[in-house]
Amino acid sequence: MARSKGLSDSTCPVARALDVVGDRWSMLIIRDAFDGVRRFGAFQESLLIARNILTDRLKQLVESGVLDCVPASDGSAYWEYVLTPRGKALFPVIVTLRQWGEGNLFERGEKHSVLIDRTNGKPVPALALKNADGKALAMEETFVKKVEGR
Amino acid sequence: MARSKGLSDSTCPVARALDVVGDRWSMLIIRDAFDGVRRFGAFQESLLIARNILTDRLKQLVESGVLDCVPASDGSAYWEYVLTPRGKALFPVIVTLRQWGEGNLFERGEKHSVLIDRTNGKPVPALALKNADGKALAMEETFVKKVEGR
Repeated sequence: MARSKGLSDSTCPVARALDVVGDRWSMLIIRDAFDGVRRFGAFQESLLIARNILTDRLKQLVESGVLDCVPASDGSAYWEYVLTPRGKALFPVIVTLRQWGEGNLFERGEKHSVLIDRTNGKPVPALALKNADGKALAMEETFVKKVEGR
Repeated sequence: MARSKGLSDSTCPVARALDVVGDRWSMLIIRDAFDGVRRFGAFQESLLIARNILTDRLKQLVESGVLDCVPASDGSAYWEYVLTPRGKALFPVIVTLRQWGEGNLFERGEKHSVLIDRTNGKPVPALALKNADGKALAMEETFVKKVEGR
């Protein structure tokens, strides 16, 4: 798997993750992919991003196995970018970013998009840390155990 | 609150969040702050980051209300950077990045750091989407409801 140099051999999974998706454009492309965007022109229209930057980020995301580049589903000559299983596994990351934004970056009453549970039409509850028994786990009740000898 | 131009008036909370933390260095600084790093020199030593970039990112994080800059707790002349409540609210974002990295960017058997629940010494369970009844919610069972008229 291709990763930019620097953090890719870190023993910290956060650092490795940021080596692949630690870029605003990459994350916005992934957000759009979750929303059903598949084609170069559609990403460009949604993100108002320069062609060369979009080309570069899509290439990186394909190389790192987050997106796959496939012939268009409608039989046309277009290529489409679709989330791989590795890419789909980023959904909780996008959701926690969303929920942090909702809770911290909007004024009271200011409108924003909402993630809805189709099965009941209600907003998806906030993702929260739980322990093995399903009880709420505070940040202070956790610590990072580093790899020994590194 | 200061944010770079472009996404800050988006009605998408993901976009606004990425306007504040959509940068690899910013996220690594926040990760280190969760691990207890507080001083400029300690961030620099941990991240091997250029002084000017670290200065810039710390300034941005203070301006956006994620970090606070306070006199050193030991009474020395140092200044320290501590997470504000808004910054602490990013913990689930860091945890989902970690869990995605653990599950997708390490070879089988390859060592990595682990987030541990202090109360029982076990790894913290993966954050997963749940519906209002606490049942697992698949990505496909959700959709983003956009703000009307925008």
